[in-house]
Amino acid sequence: MGFFFFASRAAARFLEEIRHPAGVSTAALLLTAASGGGIVAYADSSRAEEASEPSEQVAPRKKKVVVLGTGWAGTSFLKNLDCSRYDVKVISPRNYFAFTPLLPSVTCGTVEARSIVEPIRRMFEKKKKDVTYYEAECFKIDATKKAVHCRSAVGTNLDGNGDFLVDYDYLVVALGATVNTFNTPGVMEHCYFLKEVEDAQKIRRSVVDCFEKASLPNISEEEKRKILHFVIIGGGPTGVEFAAELHDFLVEDLVKIYPAIQEFVKITIIQSGEHILNMFDQRIAEFAETKFLRDGIEVCTGFRVVNVSDDLITMKSKSAGSEISVPYGMAVWSAGIGTRPVTVDFMHQIGQAKRRSLETNEWLRVRECDSVYAIGDCASISQRKIMEDISTIFKIADKDNSGTLTLKEIYDILEDICIRYPQVELYMKSMHMLDIAQLIESAIGDSHKESMVVDIEEFKKALGHVDSQVKSVPATAQVAAQQGYYLADCFNKMDYCKDHPEGPLRMTGSAAGHHNFRPFRYKHLGQFAPLGGEQAAAELPGDWVSMGHSTQWLWYSVYASKQVSWRTRVLVVSDWTRRFIFGRDSSRI
Amino acid sequence: MGFFFFASRAAARFLEEIRHPAGVSTAALLLTAASGGGIVAYADSSRAEEASEPSEQVAPRKKKVVVLGTGWAGTSFLKNLDCSRYDVKVISPRNYFAFTPLLPSVTCGTVEARSIVEPIRRMFEKKKKDVTYYEAECFKIDATKKAVHCRSAVGTNLDGNGDFLVDYDYLVVALGATVNTFNTPGVMEHCYFLKEVEDAQKIRRSVVDCFEKASLPNISEEEKRKILHFVIIGGGPTGVEFAAELHDFLVEDLVKIYPAIQEFVKITIIQSGEHILNMFDQRIAEFAETKFLRDGIEVCTGFRVVNVSDDLITMKSKSAGSEISVPYGMAVWSAGIGTRPVTVDFMHQIGQAKRRSLETNEWLRVRECDSVYAIGDCASISQRKIMEDISTIFKIADKDNSGTLTLKEIYDILEDICIRYPQVELYMKSMHMLDIAQLIESAIGDSHKESMVVDIEEFKKALGHVDSQVKSVPATAQVAAQQGYYLADCFNKMDYCKDHPEGPLRMTGSAAGHHNFRPFRYKHLGQFAPLGGEQAAAELPGDWVSMGHSTQWLWYSVYASKQVSWRTRVLVVSDWTRRFIFGRDSSRI
Repeated sequence: MGFFFFASRAAARFLEEIRHPAGVSTAALLLTAASGGGIVAYADSSRAEEASEPSEQVAPRKKKVVVLGTGWAGTSFLKNLDCSRYDVKVISPRNYFAFTPLLPSVTCGTVEARSIVEPIRRMFEKKKKDVTYYEAECFKIDATKKAVHCRSAVGTNLDGNGDFLVDYDYLVVALGATVNTFNTPGVMEHCYFLKEVEDAQKIRRSVVDCFEKASLPNISEEEKRKILHFVIIGGGPTGVEFAAELHDFLVEDLVKIYPAIQEFVKITIIQSGEHILNMFDQRIAEFAETKFLRDGIEVCTGFRVVNVSDDLITMKSKSAGSEISVPYGMAVWSAGIGTRPVTVDFMHQIGQAKRRSLETNEWLRVRECDSVYAIGDCASISQRKIMEDISTIFKIADKDNSGTLTLKEIYDILEDICIRYPQVELYMKSMHMLDIAQLIESAIGDSHKESMVVDIEEFKKALGHVDSQVKSVPATAQVAAQQGYYLADCFNKMDYCKDHPEGPLRMTGSAAGHHNFRPFRYKHLGQFAPLGGEQAAAELPGDWVSMGHSTQWLWYSVYASKQVSWRTRVLVVSDWTRRFIFGRDSSRI
Repeated sequence: MGFFFFASRAAARFLEEIRHPAGVSTAALLLTAASGGGIVAYADSSRAEEASEPSEQVAPRKKKVVVLGTGWAGTSFLKNLDCSRYDVKVISPRNYFAFTPLLPSVTCGTVEARSIVEPIRRMFEKKKKDVTYYEAECFKIDATKKAVHCRSAVGTNLDGNGDFLVDYDYLVVALGATVNTFNTPGVMEHCYFLKEVEDAQKIRRSVVDCFEKASLPNISEEEKRKILHFVIIGGGPTGVEFAAELHDFLVEDLVKIYPAIQEFVKITIIQSGEHILNMFDQRIAEFAETKFLRDGIEVCTGFRVVNVSDDLITMKSKSAGSEISVPYGMAVWSAGIGTRPVTVDFMHQIGQAKRRSLETNEWLRVRECDSVYAIGDCASISQRKIMEDISTIFKIADKDNSGTLTLKEIYDILEDICIRYPQVELYMKSMHMLDIAQLIESAIGDSHKESMVVDIEEFKKALGHVDSQVKSVPATAQVAAQQGYYLADCFNKMDYCKDHPEGPLRMTGSAAGHHNFRPFRYKHLGQFAPLGGEQAAAELPGDWVSMGHSTQWLWYSVYASKQVSWRTRVLVVSDWTRRFIFGRDSSRI
């Protein structure tokens, strides 16, 4: 009787919690318990509910919004969008959202593939959103005709023509990125990747295959060593996490069921940079390298892979220039992201052919392209440089047309400047300046603060180095989710903000007045790097670095709380529990 | 904090239960709770432990036992075999055991594929069995050289030769069966099957595909009707259960997320016989047909499918002889099992070319083939007819060589006869006879019982109709499991029984004395047919028939208790629970 009783009680409790979502969610409680307090995080799933206020008035003809993609950016946009205001269509070949940060866990069965996905239609249904979804792939964006060309991912229609056209008033491009092999020969044919759920499932089967293959009779020791050599190309967070997962799978599960061949297993990470995890704090990189050394995971830094054949990986030392080839059984390529063909084609159309991703302005609208927005990995924001607008800014600030700015005049426009050009604040912070006056002072010398006036040249000089602090946002899930959330917010208040603009003063071009919205600003909430053996490293806001077992528990808490639905949250947590009790499954399915 | 605390308590409890398996298992308790008492079932997983006594003496050179297959028969054999007595090698392309009766549940996501599989190596590891496993497919059995030819399922060796040879002293063929299309054109190309775990996964993806395809724009109503027409060919337990699962998936989950197209969905079962579930009691078939009629599942009985094209299924009425074609979106073929090529090849070698499965004797040894045993769906037992041996039996019974048998002489040999020829008992039961004397009486007329003597002709006459009760065992998981268990038992006591035979008197051929073992006897423990909507039908021992909601709970209990490991038991039960709370997942992965 035990389990059924226990399960049904749990079920009742979950249902209650789903029906009455409290302000303080269980996920937040969980976090407090696990992290020992001190670090604040939030549960993503409660956000959308708060934001979607009922629309006051329904317009006679709703504007058509077409969203391409159901990844982090697209889903975040849709979750936050007030779908009653628009006629929303979503087009994606994947009818689910995947919680991609857990993909490395799927490769070794720590978490099941199905636990990290949530059907898009279910999301809409639960939020009572009237959204049309097409399981299809957009293969051409036609910005002049305001339409996208799509092809069904599930076969053609009866008339043999699977293509169809969807027109839009606003287009949200959230197509994500693809793998980038940097044209290295053999990579496409012989390497595994880690971008999609299917990739992780393939890797899982392949790892078990290697062990089964090495267990067959008539296999020499040399062959076993080759078959059980797992190579990860790219020492970023994904590659490192996969290496750590694989090592855990090996020492916690596989040694028990393949005892005869455990001595032949080797894991190697090939990294072209000086260190693995080089986007993290130096301390984290060192911690990871030391741990991997202790675990027997080889880290080859300063090597670039130049060729992959069916049984050899050839790499070139960046310092010595010499080439070496190593035999391998399985290789995973996680060395960078590239542009999808449909994005490339669109970039050609709008004169962005030379770029690596769609260029948007600070409001996420694609440059030189009306009504098209781009968010997530397929886009990058080009921050306007303050020096390009310095004359206009000076003119606007100089209200009395005196040809000079007083400190008061500068203070009057300072907030608008800081919102429009975030690099100003970043620069002041990097120079440990507390006030704009200090910045001006440093340029014009030791004048008295009270009577300080600057002319245009002095103003230019003061702000001359500010643009060096323009930073591009990384291509992470966190950025994509924030962009989606921000853009939906803009869409929700589009009508209101036309009359009540919220943004900073327009300092570019000829138009006067305020921008409708504040520009998008990325807020870095920290980043994790799980390192295996129940240890993780984390970079937290405010230059905090945390490493070790407690960080792994923090990781568990944050990742549980960040799940997109209660269903996936329960599944992921029960997967972790199952793994603790029963270990990982090694069936080849 | 809630969930972690709750999960870790549950974990601690499971671990305790795993470490100290009590005589009365939780599964049995579960059953009592769910069925309301009255029906006795048992937990399979405790069986193996009881049976594997430690071996007293290890022989200097262990005999080599090779097992082909890791299905019900092979796994049951391996679980019960005392592996310390033999040098055991297992060869199978699937490194896991799959709980196939739950395959229909996998097709719609009621249960996850991974919850019903258990890695073979883990089974050995947990039971501390020294077994060698090769993930390979046997493609030829060479009985003269006592060896099997195998080919790796995971690619070739380094030298390009993936084949290898494994020799044996005893071979256990448990290869199972394959699908049988009865050479119907188009079936192999266009139909889905339901034999392997991969088949169920493919069906799951395909069902979701059909719904996504029908949701695309520019699809006419006629096309939608075609795409959403699901046809099941074969009204056996598998086909019926799949239809029921699909219907549940539709009404419980899909109507919510595909509301626009629900009216176009249709499920059809095509059955060549007069009724679906015709191997069950008539009452069950009628109950199922009534329920399906109410649910809107169309049951076409008396139709044989003669052709399947990419969008039409053509079937022929058995009574009228006319042909009709229906457009369909997806078709599942579950109309019978066939013989695997390697089995066919082996049957050719040993002169069984005309049969549909390997013929074994009552001790499961392949006829005319020393040291080779066959169990499960690939084999069938040919029960010796009593009339073939009637003269020998008479001679053995006639101890005083009088040419006639007294009743006492018959009673003396009766037990051996009943063990050797189970049809005698079946015949007496079918004629409502309580005693062999009644059988003799019915043949020789109204002689006095006390002074009854029979000569050879009267004896033949008395037993003349007995052989009509020879029954072949069905090709079910239950039979395969019992055969595997029985055969392992014989292997375990092979040495002991050489000196202390347990079997009946030899009545065939020239050899005297007793058989070493009692012949295999199948014990039917009942059979379930889940019908969807939380209802099921069951045929239980003793001609009991049970139908409705309580039977579904009995089904849950029995299927939970029959799981091969605690891991799969927990997973399956938590899958059911998850489905109750969150419904089924419709992601296309």
